[in-house]
Amino acid sequence: MSTQLYLGVDMGGTNIKIAIVNCKGKIIEETSLKTELKQTPENVIQSIISQASALKNYSKTKNIGIGIAGDIDFTKGIVRFSPNLPKWKNVKLKEIMENLTNKKVKVDNDANTAAIGAFWLDAKGKSDNLVCVTLGTGVGGGLIFGKKLYRGTTCTAGEIGHITIDPNGCKCKCGNSGCAETYIGAKYVSEYAKIYLNKHNSKMIDEVTGKDYSLITPKVLYDAAVKGDKAAVEIWRYVGEKLGILLAGLLNFANPDTVILCGGVSLAGRYLTAPANREIEERAFKSAVKACKIKVSHYTSKLGVVGAAMLANQ
Amino acid sequence: MSTQLYLGVDMGGTNIKIAIVNCKGKIIEETSLKTELKQTPENVIQSIISQASALKNYSKTKNIGIGIAGDIDFTKGIVRFSPNLPKWKNVKLKEIMENLTNKKVKVDNDANTAAIGAFWLDAKGKSDNLVCVTLGTGVGGGLIFGKKLYRGTTCTAGEIGHITIDPNGCKCKCGNSGCAETYIGAKYVSEYAKIYLNKHNSKMIDEVTGKDYSLITPKVLYDAAVKGDKAAVEIWRYVGEKLGILLAGLLNFANPDTVILCGGVSLAGRYLTAPANREIEERAFKSAVKACKIKVSHYTSKLGVVGAAMLANQ
Repeated sequence: MSTQLYLGVDMGGTNIKIAIVNCKGKIIEETSLKTELKQTPENVIQSIISQASALKNYSKTKNIGIGIAGDIDFTKGIVRFSPNLPKWKNVKLKEIMENLTNKKVKVDNDANTAAIGAFWLDAKGKSDNLVCVTLGTGVGGGLIFGKKLYRGTTCTAGEIGHITIDPNGCKCKCGNSGCAETYIGAKYVSEYAKIYLNKHNSKMIDEVTGKDYSLITPKVLYDAAVKGDKAAVEIWRYVGEKLGILLAGLLNFANPDTVILCGGVSLAGRYLTAPANREIEERAFKSAVKACKIKVSHYTSKLGVVGAAMLANQ
Repeated sequence: MSTQLYLGVDMGGTNIKIAIVNCKGKIIEETSLKTELKQTPENVIQSIISQASALKNYSKTKNIGIGIAGDIDFTKGIVRFSPNLPKWKNVKLKEIMENLTNKKVKVDNDANTAAIGAFWLDAKGKSDNLVCVTLGTGVGGGLIFGKKLYRGTTCTAGEIGHITIDPNGCKCKCGNSGCAETYIGAKYVSEYAKIYLNKHNSKMIDEVTGKDYSLITPKVLYDAAVKGDKAAVEIWRYVGEKLGILLAGLLNFANPDTVILCGGVSLAGRYLTAPANREIEERAFKSAVKACKIKVSHYTSKLGVVGAAMLANQ
């Protein structure tokens, strides 16, 4: 008995991950290559195909899904713009890839493929309504309603990083002020930590960074929190509360059964989720809180590639 | 050629509206009765059926839809609790009504029936993704995604009145602080007007109310704004901006093609929507703003009953 297999491609700014996945979202084979930012899109696409076709099960796949950050025309499979790949402007990725492989290709943005990945890996395909929150440099969201990806009218649904959570908050690069991303995006977390540490002491973080606070990352703050550093715990409390305000709004609006947090900032785990949960309990409807499991993904690094493969399956 | 007809019932705290509607959402016949708050639910249901069965086309309907404010178990058709009808607690409305009429009955909360009504009456059934925002004493929302009502996991999706729009805002009756409703709900609009008018003068409003500011309603403020009263315009500007913050978040999250505003506060029309739109343009993604029409319903008083009938059709 043969199972249908799908090829997923997750195009990051550093690496391109490739995997062959079964119909349950399980990785059967995987590989990766470096993202060559100086190459033309056509050459990069060619390299992806070379790498993928070396996989044992490549010939058994009929569908390819590709996830990529940026402004993607899902219907036509065009990469209008990607912040990770400066040379990629209005690239007809679907068309080029279909011509070269004779397989069906779907292209979507990486917040959506992450949501599909979370649906299969974290929720094991058992959620009806899932919101996947990517807490990276940017903050994005992917929405699964009624077990299907919800893209909105022009494929911009889920732009939760730019929902205002404090109208008097500071300026965001999008032009707005008080966006969720300005509190819970990785860069802003590190920025807040700098400001906080200039007022409060942390021997531990001073030792790790040699007092060069430009070296602060969410990872540094997490490690310090684990070792009991009060300043780090306090910084995460602040960030977690802001995340909680955003998630409380999501729960009241969409009443999901599952929220999956992924991306670098989510690695802070309970230091982030405990204060977030307190805020959610205060701000969201009890029935919505009761109905929803909020979890940090166990598969952050795999969500994109598995989600891309399962996109091919949709 | 006969067309399928549906019976809709909109149970308000003052009146119960009943209508027979065709498959395009057009009212064929309508009637109403007073809501008898002191009667038992069984008696009220009996009165509704008597009134409805006097309609000429009653026998042609096979399905009944009922909209009612409160906590509704849609699946079982049970009214767990309704703020408009204090005697209604855990009433098996669907079961009772089906036994008495031999028709199929569906029961949903009034924010959802309003959204279905807006979909048929304002959007003429041509929207894919529509958010209906009810701006009454309470602020609610109904969501139509992919032309279908989205209820969420436990039927509490669309509770947009209790999304935080300013974490430092004042206390809401739900226990949270800074809920959208505390800025744009009818009572709070009147409260804000009182505070504003204690600091600023409005001869016009003073004349209308005899300086008894407890008489201020959204209607009083709208009439004053139409006549050029600067204080009233300024109060609507404030309310409109708060509405805009909420809607910008909705647009970024759900990327709808249509937002319909209904309920008493929405009657302020452009005095409300102009400042809201300015805020939305500043705070929401351009593509989401461009994709979305935001309109005040032309059918506020009919949305509930038509939506209830079309619920029966779903």
